[in-house]
Amino acid sequence: MTRPRPLVPREDLADSVRVVGEFGVIARVVARAGSAAAAEVGPGDDAAVLRVPDGRVVATTDVLVEGRHFRRDWSSAEDVGHKAAAANLADVAAMGGVATALLVGLACPADTPTSWLEGVAAGMAAECAPLGAAVVGGDTVAAAPDSAAVVLSVTALGDLGGRAPVLRSGARPGDVLAVAGRLGWSACGLAVLRRGFSSPLAAVTAHRRPSPPYAAGPAAADAGATAMCDVSDGLLADAGHLATASGVVVDVDRAALVRTMLEPPGPLQQVAAALGADPLAWVLTGGEDHALLATFPGGAALPPGWVTVGEVRSGEPGVTVSGEPAAEVATALGAGRTGHVHFG
Amino acid sequence: MTRPRPLVPREDLADSVRVVGEFGVIARVVARAGSAAAAEVGPGDDAAVLRVPDGRVVATTDVLVEGRHFRRDWSSAEDVGHKAAAANLADVAAMGGVATALLVGLACPADTPTSWLEGVAAGMAAECAPLGAAVVGGDTVAAAPDSAAVVLSVTALGDLGGRAPVLRSGARPGDVLAVAGRLGWSACGLAVLRRGFSSPLAAVTAHRRPSPPYAAGPAAADAGATAMCDVSDGLLADAGHLATASGVVVDVDRAALVRTMLEPPGPLQQVAAALGADPLAWVLTGGEDHALLATFPGGAALPPGWVTVGEVRSGEPGVTVSGEPAAEVATALGAGRTGHVHFG
Repeated sequence: MTRPRPLVPREDLADSVRVVGEFGVIARVVARAGSAAAAEVGPGDDAAVLRVPDGRVVATTDVLVEGRHFRRDWSSAEDVGHKAAAANLADVAAMGGVATALLVGLACPADTPTSWLEGVAAGMAAECAPLGAAVVGGDTVAAAPDSAAVVLSVTALGDLGGRAPVLRSGARPGDVLAVAGRLGWSACGLAVLRRGFSSPLAAVTAHRRPSPPYAAGPAAADAGATAMCDVSDGLLADAGHLATASGVVVDVDRAALVRTMLEPPGPLQQVAAALGADPLAWVLTGGEDHALLATFPGGAALPPGWVTVGEVRSGEPGVTVSGEPAAEVATALGAGRTGHVHFG
Repeated sequence: MTRPRPLVPREDLADSVRVVGEFGVIARVVARAGSAAAAEVGPGDDAAVLRVPDGRVVATTDVLVEGRHFRRDWSSAEDVGHKAAAANLADVAAMGGVATALLVGLACPADTPTSWLEGVAAGMAAECAPLGAAVVGGDTVAAAPDSAAVVLSVTALGDLGGRAPVLRSGARPGDVLAVAGRLGWSACGLAVLRRGFSSPLAAVTAHRRPSPPYAAGPAAADAGATAMCDVSDGLLADAGHLATASGVVVDVDRAALVRTMLEPPGPLQQVAAALGADPLAWVLTGGEDHALLATFPGGAALPPGWVTVGEVRSGEPGVTVSGEPAAEVATALGAGRTGHVHFG
């Protein structure tokens, strides 16, 4: 991946963070943060205070680094805000919860335009708003002296509404494997951007702003899901985490996956044909769409939005694709690995 | 400030993050995380689940950047863990809460030794343990492609135990101003380290591992504190935030501050004498000790650990020192500014 270039020349713009100052930045960003229905104390004090009527709080953190997880020339500030929020909101949904608030830690170069940070805040607010959530606190500091990159660390909090949390470890032989949401679209969009193109727009937009199926998480918990996680590293990789945690074999049904994820044909086939790739590789190993992956007792009625894509078997914990080891399938498809490698 | 140098040569050590891999790092770090009394679901799933019997949760985030907030040659990994945890735990205390859990976002170069990260985890665990808190989740990613620096983003959650949160905005004319904890010690220690010295050890240790008076926060809330914050940017700066939020004048009594913070003489005078400085400058403008600053109704009995250092008056919101404008006092003392400037 290419090194991030500073977005602005070294002479400070009038709205750079250095000129506006930390508290000016915070005031402008907070003005775009929206408000959280659950907030008793919002931004501006030492800490926020949120109502969690359930008596338990769900909490998760994801870090996004410029040049690794986003590029300012490929994604708008609003896109980055949407994406950073979505990664965290999906983790709350994957426990069976509904997100209530975000906290944002930001390290950025002093020449970062304040308007860019306002855009990130607006994107986060827009992603959160349908859930009644909002940014309730954060911290803004100068980037490391050797870096022109923005680092964004987002923490999401959520409420379980009386539901038991759905863990990765509850899958049992005989369960069915199901997915809610899209697979492979973000990876397809990234492949397009890497080659310098910007269409098909549907794929590029999916990379810039994932659309996790938030409501499908609590619905799965209500329907008796035995295990659940979000697909952030790729279907095979995240199914592997679930298999390991549960001590089971997760078998993905290749035909079911093709039927549910690649029919009718769309942007994935279009881009794959142009690049000489197999779209199934993106479906199996592409992360960042933040689909939800869950197991349900055999015979259970799946909630709306969930489709069956495999089953759980007993055996040495791991993932198979219609009986074949996942790693071999990924290699044969040219994916080379089963999912995202963070320190490759 | 000098640029951070990588701690290890470019050839990877056997225990570097790149060699051990993300999940290996997480396993090793989690092994040192301790366990949170309030955790229903700890590390290893999409999100943690914490019990908050109060039905409200306190939440706050602080970001620490290598080369800005710590240096690996001045502070051990354990020191960095203690300091990152303390900054957040103090924010929870400043609301009148007791911290229950931390979430940690970490961006680090792939050649970071895993043993260094284990040290950070051990330091955080040790800082949290007396409160019953622990790290319950996090995310580990590669640093920006242009950076050899570690960025650590910590979120603390806490419980109010039925207390009303104490905000910055509740100070009223006639209240007394009080402090719990130390002022100026971290700044004094930093001055020592910057000159290449490592003693007096008491001051250097105060910089490496602040000792916030956590229990003083809930005690102040129980005693009827009208406003509270932690001193992270410096007494004058943080008193300024409180004055602005409350719409009052906060007057610091210079003689009371000298009496409570500089008597009997100790490392601050010793270092100040050697450097030709006035130790009161550190007391008034030094941050990072994470003392607590609060206002109480006039005549209220202060809880143990709290000392009176001024009073609240009506007037144009701001801070004075025995009636003199804070900025003039800081300048006269050679501090030049009233507190930490984040994008200076």
